[in-house]
Amino acid sequence: MEERIKKIGDFAHLDVDRASRRGYAEAIYCESKTVEQVVAIADGVRDAGHTTLFTRASKEQAEAVISTLGDVFYDADAGFLAYPATPPASTGVSVLVVAAGTSDLPQAKEALHTASYLGRSTSLIVDVGVAGIHRLLSYEEQLRAAGVIIVAAGMDGALPGVVAGLVSAPVVALPTSVGYGAGAGGIAPLLTMLNACAPGVGVVNIDNGYGAGHLAAQIAAR
Amino acid sequence: MEERIKKIGDFAHLDVDRASRRGYAEAIYCESKTVEQVVAIADGVRDAGHTTLFTRASKEQAEAVISTLGDVFYDADAGFLAYPATPPASTGVSVLVVAAGTSDLPQAKEALHTASYLGRSTSLIVDVGVAGIHRLLSYEEQLRAAGVIIVAAGMDGALPGVVAGLVSAPVVALPTSVGYGAGAGGIAPLLTMLNACAPGVGVVNIDNGYGAGHLAAQIAAR
Amino acid sequence: MEERIKKIGDFAHLDVDRASRRGYAEAIYCESKTVEQVVAIADGVRDAGHTTLFTRASKEQAEAVISTLGDVFYDADAGFLAYPATPPASTGVSVLVVAAGTSDLPQAKEALHTASYLGRSTSLIVDVGVAGIHRLLSYEEQLRAAGVIIVAAGMDGALPGVVAGLVSAPVVALPTSVGYGAGAGGIAPLLTMLNACAPGVGVVNIDNGYGAGHLAAQIAAR
Amino acid sequence: MEERIKKIGDFAHLDVDRASRRGYAEAIYCESKTVEQVVAIADGVRDAGHTTLFTRASKEQAEAVISTLGDVFYDADAGFLAYPATPPASTGVSVLVVAAGTSDLPQAKEALHTASYLGRSTSLIVDVGVAGIHRLLSYEEQLRAAGVIIVAAGMDGALPGVVAGLVSAPVVALPTSVGYGAGAGGIAPLLTMLNACAPGVGVVNIDNGYGAGHLAAQIAAR
Amino acid sequence: MEERIKKIGDFAHLDVDRASRRGYAEAIYCESKTVEQVVAIADGVRDAGHTTLFTRASKEQAEAVISTLGDVFYDADAGFLAYPATPPASTGVSVLVVAAGTSDLPQAKEALHTASYLGRSTSLIVDVGVAGIHRLLSYEEQLRAAGVIIVAAGMDGALPGVVAGLVSAPVVALPTSVGYGAGAGGIAPLLTMLNACAPGVGVVNIDNGYGAGHLAAQIAAR
Amino acid sequence: MEERIKKIGDFAHLDVDRASRRGYAEAIYCESKTVEQVVAIADGVRDAGHTTLFTRASKEQAEAVISTLGDVFYDADAGFLAYPATPPASTGVSVLVVAAGTSDLPQAKEALHTASYLGRSTSLIVDVGVAGIHRLLSYEEQLRAAGVIIVAAGMDGALPGVVAGLVSAPVVALPTSVGYGAGAGGIAPLLTMLNACAPGVGVVNIDNGYGAGHLAAQIAAR
Amino acid sequence: MEERIKKIGDFAHLDVDRASRRGYAEAIYCESKTVEQVVAIADGVRDAGHTTLFTRASKEQAEAVISTLGDVFYDADAGFLAYPATPPASTGVSVLVVAAGTSDLPQAKEALHTASYLGRSTSLIVDVGVAGIHRLLSYEEQLRAAGVIIVAAGMDGALPGVVAGLVSAPVVALPTSVGYGAGAGGIAPLLTMLNACAPGVGVVNIDNGYGAGHLAAQIAAR
Amino acid sequence: MEERIKKIGDFAHLDVDRASRRGYAEAIYCESKTVEQVVAIADGVRDAGHTTLFTRASKEQAEAVISTLGDVFYDADAGFLAYPATPPASTGVSVLVVAAGTSDLPQAKEALHTASYLGRSTSLIVDVGVAGIHRLLSYEEQLRAAGVIIVAAGMDGALPGVVAGLVSAPVVALPTSVGYGAGAGGIAPLLTMLNACAPGVGVVNIDNGYGAGHLAAQIAAR
Repeated sequence: MEERIKKIGDFAHLDVDRASRRGYAEAIYCESKTVEQVVAIADGVRDAGHTTLFTRASKEQAEAVISTLGDVFYDADAGFLAYPATPPASTGVSVLVVAAGTSDLPQAKEALHTASYLGRSTSLIVDVGVAGIHRLLSYEEQLRAAGVIIVAAGMDGALPGVVAGLVSAPVVALPTSVGYGAGAGGIAPLLTMLNACAPGVGVVNIDNGYGAGHLAAQIAAR
Repeated sequence: MEERIKKIGDFAHLDVDRASRRGYAEAIYCESKTVEQVVAIADGVRDAGHTTLFTRASKEQAEAVISTLGDVFYDADAGFLAYPATPPASTGVSVLVVAAGTSDLPQAKEALHTASYLGRSTSLIVDVGVAGIHRLLSYEEQLRAAGVIIVAAGMDGALPGVVAGLVSAPVVALPTSVGYGAGAGGIAPLLTMLNACAPGVGVVNIDNGYGAGHLAAQIAAR
Repeated sequence: MEERIKKIGDFAHLDVDRASRRGYAEAIYCESKTVEQVVAIADGVRDAGHTTLFTRASKEQAEAVISTLGDVFYDADAGFLAYPATPPASTGVSVLVVAAGTSDLPQAKEALHTASYLGRSTSLIVDVGVAGIHRLLSYEEQLRAAGVIIVAAGMDGALPGVVAGLVSAPVVALPTSVGYGAGAGGIAPLLTMLNACAPGVGVVNIDNGYGAGHLAAQIAAR
Repeated sequence: MEERIKKIGDFAHLDVDRASRRGYAEAIYCESKTVEQVVAIADGVRDAGHTTLFTRASKEQAEAVISTLGDVFYDADAGFLAYPATPPASTGVSVLVVAAGTSDLPQAKEALHTASYLGRSTSLIVDVGVAGIHRLLSYEEQLRAAGVIIVAAGMDGALPGVVAGLVSAPVVALPTSVGYGAGAGGIAPLLTMLNACAPGVGVVNIDNGYGAGHLAAQIAAR
Repeated sequence: MEERIKKIGDFAHLDVDRASRRGYAEAIYCESKTVEQVVAIADGVRDAGHTTLFTRASKEQAEAVISTLGDVFYDADAGFLAYPATPPASTGVSVLVVAAGTSDLPQAKEALHTASYLGRSTSLIVDVGVAGIHRLLSYEEQLRAAGVIIVAAGMDGALPGVVAGLVSAPVVALPTSVGYGAGAGGIAPLLTMLNACAPGVGVVNIDNGYGAGHLAAQIAAR
Repeated sequence: MEERIKKIGDFAHLDVDRASRRGYAEAIYCESKTVEQVVAIADGVRDAGHTTLFTRASKEQAEAVISTLGDVFYDADAGFLAYPATPPASTGVSVLVVAAGTSDLPQAKEALHTASYLGRSTSLIVDVGVAGIHRLLSYEEQLRAAGVIIVAAGMDGALPGVVAGLVSAPVVALPTSVGYGAGAGGIAPLLTMLNACAPGVGVVNIDNGYGAGHLAAQIAAR
Repeated sequence: MEERIKKIGDFAHLDVDRASRRGYAEAIYCESKTVEQVVAIADGVRDAGHTTLFTRASKEQAEAVISTLGDVFYDADAGFLAYPATPPASTGVSVLVVAAGTSDLPQAKEALHTASYLGRSTSLIVDVGVAGIHRLLSYEEQLRAAGVIIVAAGMDGALPGVVAGLVSAPVVALPTSVGYGAGAGGIAPLLTMLNACAPGVGVVNIDNGYGAGHLAAQIAAR
Repeated sequence: MEERIKKIGDFAHLDVDRASRRGYAEAIYCESKTVEQVVAIADGVRDAGHTTLFTRASKEQAEAVISTLGDVFYDADAGFLAYPATPPASTGVSVLVVAAGTSDLPQAKEALHTASYLGRSTSLIVDVGVAGIHRLLSYEEQLRAAGVIIVAAGMDGALPGVVAGLVSAPVVALPTSVGYGAGAGGIAPLLTMLNACAPGVGVVNIDNGYGAGHLAAQIAAR
């Protein structure tokens, strides 16, 4: 199979055929890239003809992308940008994003935006952690109606397993680095999710909202 | 919502409505249960009217289940039994199971049997680890045709990320405890899979073939 | 304060005044003691005039204690013995023990027996893990009525936090080594319990049923 | 059971019935919330009619809460606020807080304030670590008189076990992140406390003074 | 400096001059050596003219050494042998070995025997763990009189720090693998000892009774 | 590039072209393969026309290979077999294997045999650990003459760094699982080797003698 | 063997004979040295008559070295300086450096510069991670032509194993701290590389570009 | 035994009798104390009549101590102060401090100053790490003459074991947090030192120069 690859300076290879091969937008991981590198890449994708995501962008990187490309969606809390700003028309089944607490919102939103810009319809439920289980149960109907559910949680990370026990849809578990003490940095919720008693849970890396949203979008494709 | 729960002795609650609520078979995790407990539970599911799985069964437990229920499928390497022995007619899209090495077969087969008995069509590719990448690439067409792909790998655990980069289907990554030295017990492949460069990978716990098969079956449902 | 201490051979000091000083029975931790040492200690407590517990006893150690002291309660699954066999009359508020799964029963029972022999009334609920949250909620009234609740759980260890969110009584969280893969040996449920979102949870060491029962008995004293 | 939940913006659910259901004040965990979110929540609890705690508040968050609610108690070292400023009349038995060293004071005070505002009488002993065991023993009488004892310690974390060996009251062990080198960040004292030789110790997460105070308040309720 | 080294077969170099260079007996670490290798080495040291220690010897290895060399001291619990059986006359100040519990005796005795055969006078105190601090304090005078103190402890490992706070002599801390759950295998007491609040504590590896005894013997030399 | 792959049963793909593509012998990792699988693979390589290695073979597996293939070299301590038994004529520069202690011999010999059967001349130095640095220095000339040096060490793992500081040849560091206590299982020597002060050290996984020998053979090729 | 060592102030010993003994340039590790110390050392090497490297230099340290020595090569991203600025004429076989992603460039360049200034010819390939395996395969010919290959990778660290499977040259694996979540700081790629399925991989410490370059230069010497 | 303890504000207990009981100076650990607390304590020790040490003092804390007490010794790199500035006359045998590299100097000096102010004669050797073993051997005579040796080392931490193999004096091993990558923060040298092949090594916590100096001073007392 022939692959077309576009070289950017001497530091990057844009995988031009990725969108057609895998069917999903190109994403630029901005962390540990210089502003100059990000700008050069932004310049390189301008005419790609498909959606491009920029993840984990600092404020400075984000501003540079915006001034380079113009027509950009930007969520500063999530460090997320998409070009062009209008998401594609949604196909497939719906993606529901559930955030255990207010503090898990940045990661939850990165997941939600990713799924949206990969072409899925999305919705969001916030602050329904297991410490007050009745808050969650009041959403039982909405949970059962979703095609795929992303559950973001820090601290004890118990929510994805409880949700998976209530529904037949697959659950994408997104551990966040919210919390402190033993198991800080997200190790505690990560382990909890890997050990969830209810089957039907696929786990992504800590704070990897992009990965959660991408996986959910693939699962929800029809 | 009313739940019907069947008590077995004073040590177990069968979740009779699980099959209808979540749409999937009941599974009995045999490890750290006594043979007597497993037999009592087997006796309790005889007339449930739906498929029941027994996972991580020792030889002794397996024989007890077989002599209790009779019509049972048994794979000794995978420690897996299903009752009744005939899997349900398959629906949804297909589940492809890929095992990096011969040593990963027990976990791969637990995943494959689970998906089969939850009603999916399944197939298997073995011994295509990344040390000889051309072995994998010779299956590229089959990989691209699958609805969902489960990839089992121990040691460096690099295979799921490489597979995910080749296809548009979601990948369920199943780390195995094959290997030794630093990162033994499956920690190394688990971390590799959580850090996979290609998006589209959902990870289950080490050696959790049942979990991988169940998640894949849910994703493949239509 | 003068302390009376009874020497056993050249390898142990029985803390004769412990029962009066702390108000609780003496306990002999049998693991890594020889059968001869356990027998000598059993002999030494015969006339102590108060209850003595033997924890983590092997079958061989248990038989030696029984043939030395005669009037002994023995639960082989929990590796627990008490002398004399009749527990003291119960005082204080009640201790409820909840086991997430059948596999957590040995540790749960060690906790329950300990609390009983330290003079509390006890009861037990089994197999109400969070994978089927409605099983737990059907016991909500009984949970709210307890004076103290011990919750034993392995795997994801999510149950104590959910229980703590439902009641006003303090919860003693007992992580068990049930499970496999990442977080095996009880690390995953231990971390989950330390990070429980709901306040009101005090954690003891993995598989430390004796410690859980002792703490609960102290909390339940009036 | 019907639950009344108050939505704050689109990012929080106040559990209005928590105080009546569990009998304890609502607490707002400020870390990883924005100042705007904290202010909106403060605004939402103004008329709740019961005590509200704000924990782990930065200076900026604290000032915003004070200017929103006015009648507020604030301990800057502990990052703790309570509204209204007057604690409820104390009931139950007394809570004694023991800090191993001067450096453990912030966490010890968070625990003490929490217990006070949940309605318990409290007192404090400081700088009685095990390096000079006679300092501790000079307080033996006061220790024996307490209803519940919270022991905060960093470094070797040996104090809770020693205290538990001296008294019949339950001990809540609060590991702090004081110290350096191997076991830094509180892992060393956490492990020490989980492995305390004396029974009667319930452990909370590292630096979780709020959790320690809440658990102690529940234990001390009568 | 010229070194005389004696080759044993093709698998070992006896450091013949070690005793004169460092002033201490040769020691053979038996673990992971075959019985044949141990016998060949025993044969090689027969005429060395100074004391030789064999540590961590299995029963089979011990019997082979005894039948090879004859005049041997053997403590089976500690897996320790010394040849010839009579220890050298003692010099220097005294070495006191303190074992927190009965279960720590094997390691404590390996340390004690090592110090004895390296030429020090030794004594032993057992079962004075911190859970009953008054047991330890009843030995305060004996502790203050020692030239060097080795303290062996598992579980919480708190004893060396408490002892160091009571005396002016240096303390050699010997963590043991006694205990279970979090911090098992001796990690918890090792960390506690490294973080001991009282200065004057030097730590050796877990279960390394030989190392503790050797270090103490060097410190006690005059 | 076309690849020829030979399927063995439904569980293995022999990489027939590996020897020509990479220039090195095929190796069969026996651990976690059944005896039947090993025999089938042995049968499959009989006529391959190049050397085949079997590593980490149990006694039972080894006997099966010997009775299948006949002309086999076998080192039981190292769990190593080679077919045919005669190694190829040696080319390239020489490989020197250094084992810190007698206990490191099995891994050192696996490395040495691997290098031999991949076509290098090899020699061995044993029991020259850093505790007696003069033992090592007496070999300084031989060390400086080697083309590549493999250094196997457990416990503190300090030897490779010291050797690398003495020579201009590259050093392959092979940590072994010899030792106990903190850092057991080889983690301590692995970390030491990764942190070696002297440059020129390439590290392989714990106990991976095959990997060390293979890497050394590649480096020594000319 | 006589060694000539040059003392710098009271804080450093320059190993003047290292270049002649080992045949490679002296290197000064600048991290945790003061600017004054670095300047004094720079002053001391001025007339050494051979190349000197300065690694992990901060901007401030770099400027001080430049103004002290003048004729200096400096790569700010890599924190690398060499004096004199002209590298020696290259000998031996070629060193190819492969960076998995743009973010791995600083470490890859530290490795490349080190090999160059130790006298090897070098080249660089960037952004060929395994998520798009065809990007790597397009360089297969260049990979097969290299004498030694350094592969720098963060995140899943899978690239060195895949490269090693394609070539007969030895691979030096350089894990980088690029990535986040579980396995952050480079632990995930380090473990992956140690567990690489393909033999022929020697691993250096995380972010240790200098070590990778030095080892490669030694391997490539002829 | 009666103890006299001096209370400072409500946050500290000065152990006035410590100097007489243990025979060593009082030390104030400044980290995580406020400047106000440090000043109050400094004020409290003014008339104690014996030496007082302040360890891990920030610049701000140090200046406050100096302006409070006046006659103070201060080493800013080591964060160490002593009052009064003149050390006591030295007794006992000598303490030799060896620093593996220039970067280990701050910790080495904290150890050296502590031993000096506790009344021992001290000397220092710097930059003799094992990468150039001949540098160390050139000091062999001085090493053999010392009464006690403190060896500070980061990175591979191999130096204490090599030194212990050369001398009959006890070695206090001081791991430092110098280094990076796997085992960073001092874990690698700590493990190396605990696993030192040569007996006679007592380890203190990472960067705990004070503890190393104190232990050495106790060992060197006569």
